[in-house]
Amino acid sequence: MQTAFSATECVEIHRISSHSVSVCDDTLAVEEPLEIRVGYGPTDSRRQQTLTITMRSPGDDVDLAIGFLYAEGVISNAQQVLEIAGASRNWSDPSAENVIRVELHPSVELNQERLERKFISTSSCGVCGKAALETLALNSFPQLPHASPYISAKVVRQLPDRMQASQHVFKETGGVHAAGLYSTFGEPIDIREDVGRHNAVDKLIGAQVRRDNTPLLDSLLMISGRTSYEILQKALVARIPIVAAVGAPSSLAVAMAVEFDITLIGFLSRERFNIYAGKQRIEID
Amino acid sequence: MQTAFSATECVEIHRISSHSVSVCDDTLAVEEPLEIRVGYGPTDSRRQQTLTITMRSPGDDVDLAIGFLYAEGVISNAQQVLEIAGASRNWSDPSAENVIRVELHPSVELNQERLERKFISTSSCGVCGKAALETLALNSFPQLPHASPYISAKVVRQLPDRMQASQHVFKETGGVHAAGLYSTFGEPIDIREDVGRHNAVDKLIGAQVRRDNTPLLDSLLMISGRTSYEILQKALVARIPIVAAVGAPSSLAVAMAVEFDITLIGFLSRERFNIYAGKQRIEID
Repeated sequence: MQTAFSATECVEIHRISSHSVSVCDDTLAVEEPLEIRVGYGPTDSRRQQTLTITMRSPGDDVDLAIGFLYAEGVISNAQQVLEIAGASRNWSDPSAENVIRVELHPSVELNQERLERKFISTSSCGVCGKAALETLALNSFPQLPHASPYISAKVVRQLPDRMQASQHVFKETGGVHAAGLYSTFGEPIDIREDVGRHNAVDKLIGAQVRRDNTPLLDSLLMISGRTSYEILQKALVARIPIVAAVGAPSSLAVAMAVEFDITLIGFLSRERFNIYAGKQRIEID
Repeated sequence: MQTAFSATECVEIHRISSHSVSVCDDTLAVEEPLEIRVGYGPTDSRRQQTLTITMRSPGDDVDLAIGFLYAEGVISNAQQVLEIAGASRNWSDPSAENVIRVELHPSVELNQERLERKFISTSSCGVCGKAALETLALNSFPQLPHASPYISAKVVRQLPDRMQASQHVFKETGGVHAAGLYSTFGEPIDIREDVGRHNAVDKLIGAQVRRDNTPLLDSLLMISGRTSYEILQKALVARIPIVAAVGAPSSLAVAMAVEFDITLIGFLSRERFNIYAGKQRIEID
């Protein structure tokens, strides 16, 4: 992965314990802003507009931009992006501008009012609670197929160890979230790490959109932290029927899972887990 | 605290382990949107504009709104808010509209362009990396006093246990962040919990602004999770000279701490901690 060598930064710190003080090196997760601009003209045109600014781990910026636009409903496939440029790959370069420019296909509708609304509501946010559930339903996101796919409880319990083995930036820094995509046999498909957990999901799903792998009806989304409304929204748009997390779900994450028949697992460890919705997809050993 | 009885919600779940399946009750952290509107007219006027929508734990909404406006530089004290209304206290009431309306004093300048920028960049975001450090400096946030206050390493190591004892919603749900304010003798001043960690800080600092306790030059901000650019920004605005966190700091959090001479502690446990900046304020036992 691109990020392996540059999503981290080394600093000198003082480590204090009850019996010692030492000076040593510590590895930090790099946090840098990324501005996503969109428009219909060429990416070097001045007529592009800022859609969002997010604090992210540098790397996989194209995936992040595509995943963000997909989750927000601006695009529904990678062919709707004619060109994407910027966000210097060499982000250790101080002249890197941390801006990514997207040229959209003329057929893509940029609903200004809706975007401004979205805007406000992205990031740690999400959109407006129960009203949002209705909006999503109106936006023609039907429930997931009720009876498929299945996954065995034993495979589910193996996921935390599998994902942890791939969390390279976390191992170095302890400071990033991870989002992983797995088959219902527990085979790893892809993983992304980021200082922002929504960004990790956008990068992961954006990479699948670019490969034309969506909808992801036979896969499971694994999250290193907690699940919120917005994580479930991103899963729903990508048609991922099972979401599992090491942490707790919020009330709206559960409401969303129930509403759209997504299987939602929380507090997942190798010993046990909780099922908050969609139990029919879990085969008990 | 108001939140103790209603920031949680009970649901029935299936608990799966390698040898058992049980149906039991589980307590969720409630996640609901809050729209913050501001304007110069009365709070029931239609001329108010939406400043942000954030997903938050219901409760302490006035603190959240005041803290958010303070952190964003819209207000610098509670007297600049003439009236604040809305966000029904009885949020279990389905008719509660989750909107809080703020009437600003006419002397408060609402810089539209700056706010729109802020807007985009709030929530899991923050503003624009190094450019933002410069902007903050230009916005007349001087460095913190270099030589004060002091806190002993032993007191620092006691903070995680002290804070955990007050994390009531976390104990029930495992699904919320906490932000606590402590004196340099380790005495608890205040604590807030929220599904969003920035909201927890906004609620905590907002409560101090309402009590005219700012600037908070003799206190320490304790965070249950990781520290990012935005957490440090909120501390800087409130003039909190020491920030300690159970989790890791990001690279920008460290850059910000160095730039403004904030003491930044990470990976804090009862056994040890790391100092990333501002070591002069820590007295080693």
